[in-house]
Amino acid sequence: MTQLAPSDKALVPFVSVDHMMQLIHHIGMAEMLRGLARYIEADFKRWELFDKTPRVASHSAEGVIELMPTSDGETYGFKYVNGHPKNTADGLQTVTAFGLLADVDTGYPVLLTEMTLLTALRTAATSALVARTLAPKGATTMAMIGNGAQSEFQSLAMMAIAGITHVRLYDIDAAATEKCARNLAGTGLVVTQCKSAEEAIEGAHILTTCTADKAYATILTDNMVGAGVHINAIGGDCPGKTEIAPGILQRGDIFVEYPPQTRVEGDIQQLDPDHPVTEIWQVIAGQVDGRTSDKQITIFDSVGFAIEDFSALRYVRDSIEGTEFFHPLDLLADPDDPRDLMGMVMRSQG
Amino acid sequence: MTQLAPSDKALVPFVSVDHMMQLIHHIGMAEMLRGLARYIEADFKRWELFDKTPRVASHSAEGVIELMPTSDGETYGFKYVNGHPKNTADGLQTVTAFGLLADVDTGYPVLLTEMTLLTALRTAATSALVARTLAPKGATTMAMIGNGAQSEFQSLAMMAIAGITHVRLYDIDAAATEKCARNLAGTGLVVTQCKSAEEAIEGAHILTTCTADKAYATILTDNMVGAGVHINAIGGDCPGKTEIAPGILQRGDIFVEYPPQTRVEGDIQQLDPDHPVTEIWQVIAGQVDGRTSDKQITIFDSVGFAIEDFSALRYVRDSIEGTEFFHPLDLLADPDDPRDLMGMVMRSQG
Repeated sequence: MTQLAPSDKALVPFVSVDHMMQLIHHIGMAEMLRGLARYIEADFKRWELFDKTPRVASHSAEGVIELMPTSDGETYGFKYVNGHPKNTADGLQTVTAFGLLADVDTGYPVLLTEMTLLTALRTAATSALVARTLAPKGATTMAMIGNGAQSEFQSLAMMAIAGITHVRLYDIDAAATEKCARNLAGTGLVVTQCKSAEEAIEGAHILTTCTADKAYATILTDNMVGAGVHINAIGGDCPGKTEIAPGILQRGDIFVEYPPQTRVEGDIQQLDPDHPVTEIWQVIAGQVDGRTSDKQITIFDSVGFAIEDFSALRYVRDSIEGTEFFHPLDLLADPDDPRDLMGMVMRSQG
Repeated sequence: MTQLAPSDKALVPFVSVDHMMQLIHHIGMAEMLRGLARYIEADFKRWELFDKTPRVASHSAEGVIELMPTSDGETYGFKYVNGHPKNTADGLQTVTAFGLLADVDTGYPVLLTEMTLLTALRTAATSALVARTLAPKGATTMAMIGNGAQSEFQSLAMMAIAGITHVRLYDIDAAATEKCARNLAGTGLVVTQCKSAEEAIEGAHILTTCTADKAYATILTDNMVGAGVHINAIGGDCPGKTEIAPGILQRGDIFVEYPPQTRVEGDIQQLDPDHPVTEIWQVIAGQVDGRTSDKQITIFDSVGFAIEDFSALRYVRDSIEGTEFFHPLDLLADPDDPRDLMGMVMRSQG
């Protein structure tokens, strides 16, 4: 007797990179970013009920591999993600990722998906959700410093969610800026290519830094940043990797995702461990103030947190239902009699 | 321009449940168990160079979902595994699992595989490797108490690796014993079905307990166990779940995989936190003694450790090379220009 087809319970919906790209085109990039922001906002508002733990990181000389688990009590999710700054030189992605959702009551996975693209989308959606909350009223212009893989997603999310109409691009590599400008052509954003970080931040209300060097870099120096801006600091996201001069951090009000993680990985690793920070979910949930003055410098020291991935995984699970943008993966052994794993193996021989 | 085929780097070899069953038949169950034991033995001998951390567990009322990562500095591996004792009543597996290997230098995954079957195999191979090391000389008979999904794998591994020729089966559910005996018919093992745990251990040199209740159960009571046996305690593997009477643990010499994990999850959770235990890798590596007398009771308080999964993943990676027992999974976004993730998405629209 041969069991040709595994049972339904054994099959986990899998979203490949190709399917994810099809899903993006099907929904539309701007709408998908807004949808993700809605899911992230909803989960930020129920932040307290999540299992939270700093990510489990395995560091090496070349980079880091991380597992980021969380659970809302009904659904469990985790993301596998690497960060290898030198990969780019070898034609590889700095960051690749995949993720999974599972049912807490049974432990059975219910979704496996690529998350390289999805992480780019959720990072941008999170940045824009926070910028919409913290940026000065009427903000229309963003400086985008670092024009790598994340830069277009940041720009489009800021347009779709936070009302940005102008982006000013700068990268130490002019080819990266050229690439970013090319990809943003026709999106409706007014794009200016700049020759320095100083030029890029001229007139900008939102300053986004997203550079990849694993180094204590200073992308924004103290004298570059005046009053009344929002800094969206994306690239300082692991120990030894920072972008913002400590003087700016001292002058601004700092908002973070999860302090125990950000104090180790974020730009605030440069500050005292008890430097005051505000958890951004409390602002989103209306529990504490965000921006309180036009002159204030607000800083979102973003390192990415498991709950944002959880929101993104929920969004994908709900979005693929009834579509053809996934295929069933034979991931779980599921014999007719759960105690008869060996019998299943024996019968498979035919 | 449409990119129809993702590049090689984007494709991760995936071993489905069906492929794993084909691989088992291709290699042969006994030889695969021996092969796994060789890989586990090799990794036990270089135990000290691994990144070790207790598994990352998410507990709920119904069970637990765990991530078990480790790395040898060149290769990173992790397993996702759940443990839900009540699943069986709903026709689901108590334990399902999948796992992944990745290249430490790039963070890119190199293998994704089902691990429900593979976990059953590696658990049995580990038990038998340890029994070969600790059981009394000339041991031929094993009592197998708990005749669920793991029982046949334990029996076959003990035959293939530790020289066992006779197994004596007992389960509180006679149907489970019947199933186990049926699956072991024709394997060369002499199988005896018993009506009690007491009957099962008559004349046995190795006592294997592998029951699934999430409870402080006492499968082996103090007066049941005499001198000169090896106890292979598999089922006591999470907080609140034990099988062996404390009196037996006090009389025997206890061997464990990784003390920080076993003291929380193993049968020794019933003992003082400083009760002496021996790390089994030290015995395998020839650094410390295992069994030193025929009268001794040796106890392997096994809870499973990430390095055993790592060994199993390495074995599968090496075994599928050049075979058809996997297929390439489009898991990683890999644009021609790594900084041009958005361009890849845009071009995929055609």
